[in-house]
Amino acid sequence: MGDPAGIGGELSLRAWHLLRSGPQCFVALDDPDRLASLAATIRCDVPIHVVADAAAAADAFRQALPVLPVRLAARAVPGQPDKANARAVIDSIERAAALALRGAVGGVVTNPINKAALYDSGFAYPGHTEFLAALTGAQGKQIMMLVSPQLRVVPVTVHASLRASLAMLSTEMILVAARTAHTALHRDFGIARPRLAMAGLNPHAGERGALGDEESTIIAPAMAALRADRIDVSGPWPPDTMFTAAARARYDVAICMYHDQGLIPLKTLDMDHGVNVTLGLPIVRTSPDHGTAYDIAGKGVADPTSLIAAIELAASLAERRSAALGSAA
Amino acid sequence: MGDPAGIGGELSLRAWHLLRSGPQCFVALDDPDRLASLAATIRCDVPIHVVADAAAAADAFRQALPVLPVRLAARAVPGQPDKANARAVIDSIERAAALALRGAVGGVVTNPINKAALYDSGFAYPGHTEFLAALTGAQGKQIMMLVSPQLRVVPVTVHASLRASLAMLSTEMILVAARTAHTALHRDFGIARPRLAMAGLNPHAGERGALGDEESTIIAPAMAALRADRIDVSGPWPPDTMFTAAARARYDVAICMYHDQGLIPLKTLDMDHGVNVTLGLPIVRTSPDHGTAYDIAGKGVADPTSLIAAIELAASLAERRSAALGSAA
Repeated sequence: MGDPAGIGGELSLRAWHLLRSGPQCFVALDDPDRLASLAATIRCDVPIHVVADAAAAADAFRQALPVLPVRLAARAVPGQPDKANARAVIDSIERAAALALRGAVGGVVTNPINKAALYDSGFAYPGHTEFLAALTGAQGKQIMMLVSPQLRVVPVTVHASLRASLAMLSTEMILVAARTAHTALHRDFGIARPRLAMAGLNPHAGERGALGDEESTIIAPAMAALRADRIDVSGPWPPDTMFTAAARARYDVAICMYHDQGLIPLKTLDMDHGVNVTLGLPIVRTSPDHGTAYDIAGKGVADPTSLIAAIELAASLAERRSAALGSAA
Repeated sequence: MGDPAGIGGELSLRAWHLLRSGPQCFVALDDPDRLASLAATIRCDVPIHVVADAAAAADAFRQALPVLPVRLAARAVPGQPDKANARAVIDSIERAAALALRGAVGGVVTNPINKAALYDSGFAYPGHTEFLAALTGAQGKQIMMLVSPQLRVVPVTVHASLRASLAMLSTEMILVAARTAHTALHRDFGIARPRLAMAGLNPHAGERGALGDEESTIIAPAMAALRADRIDVSGPWPPDTMFTAAARARYDVAICMYHDQGLIPLKTLDMDHGVNVTLGLPIVRTSPDHGTAYDIAGKGVADPTSLIAAIELAASLAERRSAALGSAA
């Protein structure tokens, strides 16, 4: 569901329209009445079909948007977050995680939430990702990967100031991020031998120490440990030249030292198709790479491209993961 | 000339071939014998014409590459920098600056140098830019701008580690960079009312203090001072979304807080056409946005695109600046 005052609902409606005749299906954990009302408001003709379980959703999907109902306490008003609905937002996340954990669905795709609107209802996490990690028993193991058609990036430090990111950056954090990315690319993305490109931290990757020494003190030991595990890792690369088309052709994921080092090139190359994938969880989880967009919510102009990319990627990851489990069984 | 062991010489030869029938002309401050020998080696048919002054160069340009001779002490071997030639490299820079200062040429375009090869000859500057600032009486006033067809960026902090860049970043530095960029865009680039976009420092531009406070403590005071000068400045913008095509359409230059914040998007969007422009000098100065490339020097495969873009931009800046001086006189 995401924040019912944001653009999530209309994106779900649009995504159903565009995916209904495709190979994948999804079920919305949302309030069926608000979705029907929203469909009328934005003049998007989507029949809503309330289902009792995920299995029924698959049967219904070609004819209607299947909804596992999560009832809102207050009427959702686009652009106006309401704390009365916080519990329903949290419920939808908990139920989605539970469905994925027991294999009733292949994965979870989350629409954007507004953390501030949830804090009063006991939500004590920096965001969706940490909450899902807790719900699935993987606290502290979550690693963010951003995926677009041109580039995959894993920022080692994420939601902290640049100063704090520099202070916390460690060989161990780089190792965890790189190993998690390697495992996911191999198992869920179907890349036989993933090629990791390690970004330097400093301009020109430190220019042999003249512009910083973290490349040798922090990054090099991580690379040595990865190579000892026979992981294909190159770098540390000068950050400004590692995202050109020619450079990108030489790796499957860029391990980046801080948020903007990875997100600037990803969003500059492709603002619309970015998908956020949470690695390190026992479930598949993706999300569109944008926020609640209150300013345009309810107007019918929100672009579902990123949500659709998130659904399609989740389906593809889930398929590969279940095939791997099947062949292991 | 740049480093005679690097790709500069062959780029000059190729640039002459591609620009000889165009509206601009240039004169090489280089060793005519080494250029002739290099032309033979890389099978690039360029007649060399030694000239006595810059005026003669303009007359000669359509028929031959005009060269104001700067004799090398040792034979230049591609890929093998030789300290014996350091003095000639430095001479070529000094003479170019002197020619530009007295208006004999419109500006200076520098081929890449290797600072390490120059230090023993008394070269005491971090690079070309600082040396040219000293030669033209503008020490400490130089500001780097990178220009590509899609984007202009001015990094406030440049060649320092990321940690040192964070420590030195100040309201005053931002102000100097922004004012210098504003003046240059107005006077030399012909933009009547330049629009500056100020980057945030932190992820999401600090998310109202949750991810860092430099946006309010350091950047906001600079923006207030610029606005008091009636300069059109917007931001501070979240760094990861300010370089999309839609965002770039709303500004003429991005003022970036550190090297890679500006250079990652610029080089990711266009690796080949980037030009380095030094603002804040009394002369026009540009350079290609790449290094000596010893690994491919002398093989005839180096791409002159960036040097040509640098020459064309220098010519355009010089023309506007001299027109402005003319109309002021």
